[in-house]
Amino acid sequence: MTTTCEDNNLNNADSETFSISNYRRDSSHCFYQNRVIQPLLTDLYQITMAYAYWKSGKTHDVAVFDLFFRNNPFHGEFTIFAGLEECLKFLKNFHYSVGDINYLKTVLPDGVEEEFFEYLGKLTAKEVTVYALDEGSVAFPRVPLIKLEGPLIIVQLLETTLLTLVNYASLMATNAARYRIVAGPVVKLLEFGLRRAQGPDGGLSSSKYAYIGGFDGTSNVLAGKLFNIPVKGTHAHAYITSFSGFDELTNKELPHNHSGITADLLELSIEHRRNLSSVLHISTAEANDGELAAMVSFAIAFPNGFMALVDTYDVKRSGILNFCSVALALNDQGYKPVGIRIDSGDLAYLSCLARQSFVKIAEDYDLPWFADLTIVASNDINEETILSLNEQGHKIDCFGIGTHLVTCQKQPALGCVYKLVEINNQPRIKLSQDVDKVTMPGKKTAFRLYGTEGWAVIDILQKDDEEPPQVGKKVLCRHPFHESKRAFVTPARVETLYKVWWKDGAIRQPIPTLEDVRNRVQESLQTLRHDHLRHLNPTPYKVAVSDNLYNFLHDLWLQNQPIGELS
Amino acid sequence: MTTTCEDNNLNNADSETFSISNYRRDSSHCFYQNRVIQPLLTDLYQITMAYAYWKSGKTHDVAVFDLFFRNNPFHGEFTIFAGLEECLKFLKNFHYSVGDINYLKTVLPDGVEEEFFEYLGKLTAKEVTVYALDEGSVAFPRVPLIKLEGPLIIVQLLETTLLTLVNYASLMATNAARYRIVAGPVVKLLEFGLRRAQGPDGGLSSSKYAYIGGFDGTSNVLAGKLFNIPVKGTHAHAYITSFSGFDELTNKELPHNHSGITADLLELSIEHRRNLSSVLHISTAEANDGELAAMVSFAIAFPNGFMALVDTYDVKRSGILNFCSVALALNDQGYKPVGIRIDSGDLAYLSCLARQSFVKIAEDYDLPWFADLTIVASNDINEETILSLNEQGHKIDCFGIGTHLVTCQKQPALGCVYKLVEINNQPRIKLSQDVDKVTMPGKKTAFRLYGTEGWAVIDILQKDDEEPPQVGKKVLCRHPFHESKRAFVTPARVETLYKVWWKDGAIRQPIPTLEDVRNRVQESLQTLRHDHLRHLNPTPYKVAVSDNLYNFLHDLWLQNQPIGELS
Repeated sequence: MTTTCEDNNLNNADSETFSISNYRRDSSHCFYQNRVIQPLLTDLYQITMAYAYWKSGKTHDVAVFDLFFRNNPFHGEFTIFAGLEECLKFLKNFHYSVGDINYLKTVLPDGVEEEFFEYLGKLTAKEVTVYALDEGSVAFPRVPLIKLEGPLIIVQLLETTLLTLVNYASLMATNAARYRIVAGPVVKLLEFGLRRAQGPDGGLSSSKYAYIGGFDGTSNVLAGKLFNIPVKGTHAHAYITSFSGFDELTNKELPHNHSGITADLLELSIEHRRNLSSVLHISTAEANDGELAAMVSFAIAFPNGFMALVDTYDVKRSGILNFCSVALALNDQGYKPVGIRIDSGDLAYLSCLARQSFVKIAEDYDLPWFADLTIVASNDINEETILSLNEQGHKIDCFGIGTHLVTCQKQPALGCVYKLVEINNQPRIKLSQDVDKVTMPGKKTAFRLYGTEGWAVIDILQKDDEEPPQVGKKVLCRHPFHESKRAFVTPARVETLYKVWWKDGAIRQPIPTLEDVRNRVQESLQTLRHDHLRHLNPTPYKVAVSDNLYNFLHDLWLQNQPIGELS
Repeated sequence: MTTTCEDNNLNNADSETFSISNYRRDSSHCFYQNRVIQPLLTDLYQITMAYAYWKSGKTHDVAVFDLFFRNNPFHGEFTIFAGLEECLKFLKNFHYSVGDINYLKTVLPDGVEEEFFEYLGKLTAKEVTVYALDEGSVAFPRVPLIKLEGPLIIVQLLETTLLTLVNYASLMATNAARYRIVAGPVVKLLEFGLRRAQGPDGGLSSSKYAYIGGFDGTSNVLAGKLFNIPVKGTHAHAYITSFSGFDELTNKELPHNHSGITADLLELSIEHRRNLSSVLHISTAEANDGELAAMVSFAIAFPNGFMALVDTYDVKRSGILNFCSVALALNDQGYKPVGIRIDSGDLAYLSCLARQSFVKIAEDYDLPWFADLTIVASNDINEETILSLNEQGHKIDCFGIGTHLVTCQKQPALGCVYKLVEINNQPRIKLSQDVDKVTMPGKKTAFRLYGTEGWAVIDILQKDDEEPPQVGKKVLCRHPFHESKRAFVTPARVETLYKVWWKDGAIRQPIPTLEDVRNRVQESLQTLRHDHLRHLNPTPYKVAVSDNLYNFLHDLWLQNQPIGELS
């Protein structure tokens, strides 16, 4: 007896968890909420192939496809698998509408038979079975992220859309996870990339998968609303430059947090600035009055959440002095400021300078918390910047990261492919001059073997009908192509990598929440030895094949590679 | 009297042109059609700033913002401006729903006043005026693509979304235009990038803006449907590998195109292969039978559009021989094949080899058209690959380009920024240690000056109240920052760069069709001297300021830059 988890997990409108129902909570016709990925979001050749298969009488052929990548991105040695929930949603809704069919009739050549369009109109993904890793798992080259079985035509038709849904999601989650690794577990990471992403949906995907990969929040409000991700933000330079002096400040009053007695926050700030000028050795003549006015107005709006940008004019000569003046004025009125953001210049130096000032004030004014005000940095940050800042020493508590995070600068696409490996129980192999591009034939399964210290040691691909590896029993692990590279592994733990996610037209596992997937990423990364994760020259994680699969692969290879004649 | 073009151009449901109505043609709840870009698709700091402005009594302040970039992408010297129509659509629909406001209440701190949310709920973009270049125009650093005037709060709230809509669109159109330049005007260019784009919408934007930039079509079916772009495609390697021999071919019959008399296409192909083996000096023993079977089946499905992938096993020893055999068999039955696609290996060599075979067959079989069969190449192509192929000599008629096109590999984001330049008629300047980042203060306009030979010579930014340059009258053009760099230009033609696109809540210009914008790109590029467009070391196109603007900028700069004291 199989039960479907669909009703419990996908239509629970009360749940605050990440579930497909999240997309539908708002009934307005807005972007993303009603988003149904259409089956026409595909390459035309899938449709032309479908017709040719149909015309060849291959409607009842059963195929197995593997979705996998050949190389880890970013010169790294791991990848985070993401996008599975989106794939399941796509399968659930897979259906060509009348409008789709009518459009296809205009695109395909005249000779295409009407019966084919009738056939297309009835297609669903019901007969397809989908096996996949858990979303958020670390994954490695050549080990399929997703395996699909079912009618050749349908499984072929799913290719492009599944790749589109997995490639960027996994790339982005991996990139975010890498930033988290170099930043360490304590520093906060915020995603600020919406304006530099591939349009609106690119931006939403970035925010979602950055969070999954280990970021703490996003500036993207819609992503916050749709995915229940923390949203963060303070103000831009424009806010500061919109004030040119004190006289533009019409509202200067702020009631005391406890007594309610009102004071002129500008007056208080100006007075503090006068005193601070000698404490911090900064001339008030060089501090910008427009900046102070802007900060005062912002503090009045957000007395409990005052965070200010300090680099509009000059961090050292104006920004820090003005911020600290307003912060002390807020303190007089019973509020605790939050901190500063630095968006240009030498972030290591400026953050240390700011921290020094905060510590000095904490001591001179006997306000210990002042030393711990938050310092956010946000100028063109990438992995290398963070590593370099770590090396120089910095006092940054939080990075806001945009362009390089969302565009995945170092490698802007993950090269997942979708390969036919079996048809009607007959294995298929795609040969190539390039050994890396040879596909692993046949229906396979995979296990992750763990050592006694708890680390993941190796992933092993086997033929589907082989016995799974057993704890305490040695397993011969072979390199798929190098005959002499082999090793015995005696696993202390064996993890079965695949679950059935989709079968008989229904989702077969509880869909994890966004938080679950995010936690899964960190747990999964913790099973890897540090040398696999390090930035410079990481050790490759081993992916092996069983002896059985090795022989099967090589026999088939030779069969398909005719012996040439030298001339 | 102002008339609005809105009703004529945006709601014409019969029109096949690119217009906002295209998105709404299909009434089903599908992705993109009902796509309304929500105002929550923004950074949170826009909302916090809005509250602080509101709280400071700045609701009636009037601001001018410039949207511009500082550097051309891809080490080039031009940029194509795109995304304007999407921006206008966003402005037209700009409105916070009750759900949006309720969500914002959960995100903003508790103290935020209820009246602010009421104010937000009533906001529209009606009081905003938008000036912009024509979509599809070449554009240069520092010359605003879009200028916005209106209530400070509203114009500030538009920032992130407008940047999101312009940045990727312009980057993609520019990238596509660069591919078109290196490929030359004759070779066909197809966009194949869906699976490597930033998710579903990233993929749709890629297809649309690649077409605008000069591509001939896309593989993305949904993009074809939504934007009326030609869609192209043949089959994948999986199609070839799904056949392992002749016996899998159940349907081998093809009626003659004219007589209707049926023949066994497999038999015909096998016979031709036997003969061709000696014509082309390729052993039939090395040709893969599964490949031939697959090609025959595909030819039966698409006898008038037969195009086959020839690199599944071996282009030289199997693919070309099999393709030519089926092509000749089709010819026997009165059909004309289209050509081949090569997806791996040495594309220069293999395309020449294929062309040689085609020419040989054309001669030997007296079929002149055979020599001109189409050769498509599609393996990891970028600008440099095309240039290198051009240098080596190749026989490719069409490139299919995916990853590098849609990810804009060489520079995955265009750094458009959105800067406050005036508030309540007072200019604003953002200073920076980095001269490049100093903003041009005040409300400005711009002209493009053309020389007697028809080339665009220089773009000049002026203060808004200056007299426009006049034909035949010399204009002093100054470098914005280098005092000594100046020149007189006597224009043979003066082009006013900005039009009013949005005013009083309506679109004020006819929205060009997608084809219009695409043509505009090529026309606009043709006004540039070739040395600005070349791949290696292109000459920078000059952008100047008027003498008046120069003095205005520098006076303001000094005013805002306090004189430090050396110690």
